Amino acid sequence: MATLQAPADPESNPRVKAVFDDIRATRKTDFVNNLWRTLAFDADLLERTWAEVKAVMAAPGALDPLTRELIYIAVSIANSCGYCVHSHTAAARAKGMSDAQHAELLAIVSLAAKTNHLVTGLQVPLDPAFDANRP
Amino acid sequence: MATLQAPADPESNPRVKAVFDDIRATRKTDFVNNLWRTLAFDADLLERTWAEVKAVMAAPGALDPLTRELIYIAVSIANSCGYCVHSHTAAARAKGMSDAQHAELLAIVSLAAKTNHLVTGLQVPLDPAFDANRP
Amino acid sequence: MATLQAPADPESNPRVKAVFDDIRATRKTDFVNNLWRTLAFDADLLERTWAEVKAVMAAPGALDPLTRELIYIAVSIANSCGYCVHSHTAAARAKGMSDAQHAELLAIVSLAAKTNHLVTGLQVPLDPAFDANRP
Amino acid sequence: MATLQAPADPESNPRVKAVFDDIRATRKTDFVNNLWRTLAFDADLLERTWAEVKAVMAAPGALDPLTRELIYIAVSIANSCGYCVHSHTAAARAKGMSDAQHAELLAIVSLAAKTNHLVTGLQVPLDPAFDANRP
Amino acid sequence: MATLQAPADPESNPRVKAVFDDIRATRKTDFVNNLWRTLAFDADLLERTWAEVKAVMAAPGALDPLTRELIYIAVSIANSCGYCVHSHTAAARAKGMSDAQHAELLAIVSLAAKTNHLVTGLQVPLDPAFDANRP
Amino acid sequence: MATLQAPADPESNPRVKAVFDDIRATRKTDFVNNLWRTLAFDADLLERTWAEVKAVMAAPGALDPLTRELIYIAVSIANSCGYCVHSHTAAARAKGMSDAQHAELLAIVSLAAKTNHLVTGLQVPLDPAFDANRP
Repeated sequence: MATLQAPADPESNPRVKAVFDDIRATRKTDFVNNLWRTLAFDADLLERTWAEVKAVMAAPGALDPLTRELIYIAVSIANSCGYCVHSHTAAARAKGMSDAQHAELLAIVSLAAKTNHLVTGLQVPLDPAFDANRP
Repeated sequence: MATLQAPADPESNPRVKAVFDDIRATRKTDFVNNLWRTLAFDADLLERTWAEVKAVMAAPGALDPLTRELIYIAVSIANSCGYCVHSHTAAARAKGMSDAQHAELLAIVSLAAKTNHLVTGLQVPLDPAFDANRP
Repeated sequence: MATLQAPADPESNPRVKAVFDDIRATRKTDFVNNLWRTLAFDADLLERTWAEVKAVMAAPGALDPLTRELIYIAVSIANSCGYCVHSHTAAARAKGMSDAQHAELLAIVSLAAKTNHLVTGLQVPLDPAFDANRP
Repeated sequence: MATLQAPADPESNPRVKAVFDDIRATRKTDFVNNLWRTLAFDADLLERTWAEVKAVMAAPGALDPLTRELIYIAVSIANSCGYCVHSHTAAARAKGMSDAQHAELLAIVSLAAKTNHLVTGLQVPLDPAFDANRP
Repeated sequence: MATLQAPADPESNPRVKAVFDDIRATRKTDFVNNLWRTLAFDADLLERTWAEVKAVMAAPGALDPLTRELIYIAVSIANSCGYCVHSHTAAARAKGMSDAQHAELLAIVSLAAKTNHLVTGLQVPLDPAFDANRP
Repeated sequence: MATLQAPADPESNPRVKAVFDDIRATRKTDFVNNLWRTLAFDADLLERTWAEVKAVMAAPGALDPLTRELIYIAVSIANSCGYCVHSHTAAARAKGMSDAQHAELLAIVSLAAKTNHLVTGLQVPLDPAFDANRP
């Protein structure tokens, strides 16, 4: 049950088809998941969102592809997005995440949440040593 | 301004001193940051929190130390914990995070937040392909 | 699956019936959605919640009815409340939200989430110019 | 630095003065904290907010006053509201919260955050036994 | 649909069986809910998580067992963890939570969320009186 | 105190200067706020972020400029980003937001947060009527 009707035949729109083709080529799979099928209701939003996901997640960069997915999962958990947790966990597995790495990711994410709440409950004052601009 | 009075002389309590000594030895620095100084008001909570941070963040494991810090920062940003963002960004730098990696981390975290909100706004239905238990 | 049993015959309670009648009259529809049917387990909570929703969302004011719904959806997305996103998206459509406005709402909400996370990750210091009390 | 100018002399408005007088009488103190001084910019919002806070937090009910404050602090921590954590921790202390209770509150809040993130990361399916409506 | 395959026969692992036995003994019930069945994929994570839940929630302390559950529910609501809200509401009922207490809990949690958002929207400056370290 | 050192002379970088010039031209003001000054540490991130903010917030569209800012503020409040609340409240005022509209915005945002938490606490089941895809 979505909040809008995804187009029944999205690829009849050539702009949507171009994005879907690029998703399939970039990811080397025929599978186009529901986020993109739903976003197809607005070609502008679809194009801009995919362009950014491709640039940030699929281009060469300073962090390796699996690390990027682990960061993505961490944010998605903290923002309580069940769909995103599912889709990026699947992506991380496809990029080689082992069970041990998955368990460690969950241990770090949940520990961070724990100390985040401790710090906010204590209202710990900032240490001047953390100032990136200190002399 | 914290929500409780951190002990003026925390290391007069031998249990607190033992934790602080272990923090200094584990991190190879004399610096003990305010989270631990504030938690010193309750030796149980201090000991348990440090034991877990040490086990998850400092023991050998399936993810390298810098990757762990990047995940920690990601969660701390999503949970809006300013102190935690500062302290773990400092830790990531100490473990070698470059400016390019920092910029990439921020690009991934903010993109994830963006698609998390898109997905929640669209209420995208789960793809059966994401089911870890499918036959 | 709710966390409590909604009353099987809520309108047998005259206080609940009065609220349901007012919901139907205010919204000009026979439909009373599950939030109110579940809240019927406690007539006080039901009455107070509906009174506030009616006062804030249905009374004349400084913002038009559709703008109010868009704001409501934005908060519900950020707070990850799937039910609320569904019910207020339906309400916004009933008040005339077009597909183009829906797409723009989602673009703004997701961009805001993105820069919220960027700003929190950078811990950007406040500009004095933003001080409403500056001379 | 607030997002609006709080009135310089709020009690010159008789509606504001009536609320402030009721705050002082209800709480048995001369102190009116900044939330109310800032809300004084809009008498309607001030009156409605105080009426609800008084009804929920100060009237006799099924939970004792300290328990109510502990719940309020827990939500304020999870929603990352530093001002709210400060003001309700002060209120809890005024209602008798001991250091041991404070430490236990923080231990529960941070553990809950930890398992919330674990569960969201795992996307644990609901147990039918939790259904309040099961036969 | 979970993000990983829970072990089909978890108690064939003696470490998992020991935890499940302790859960059953501590809670005086044969029921082991899905969180633990899913966590069984990693015995370390399972053991550490259960040890902490048992220490914080089941050991004698400064807060009574029902109050602890109410705090746990409050955090789980604010963090939008549906599974956690279900499981801890069931636990609170098992520990004696009445319908009136449940309604009051929900009234406090939702009021706190309301004022949290008001305060964050107003960016209310901290009152010096809330400083736990003031002379 | 930021998590990184903003460049001391950002406009010595021609890519940064071009963005700052466009910000000043688009907003018809000499003022460039700290978010952009901090983002200047990475010209790619600066360019992409500004391009998106400009496209979504400053181009003609289906929602008027003030409504867009109100939605932006709503999300920033719910995500607890103090800086963002300050900067977008200032922007909304510059675009004509009255005190009455500001009060109404805060009333809607805080009410939405309240019912978001109520719904999550109750785990209200979705009404089939909200299904955008129902026949």
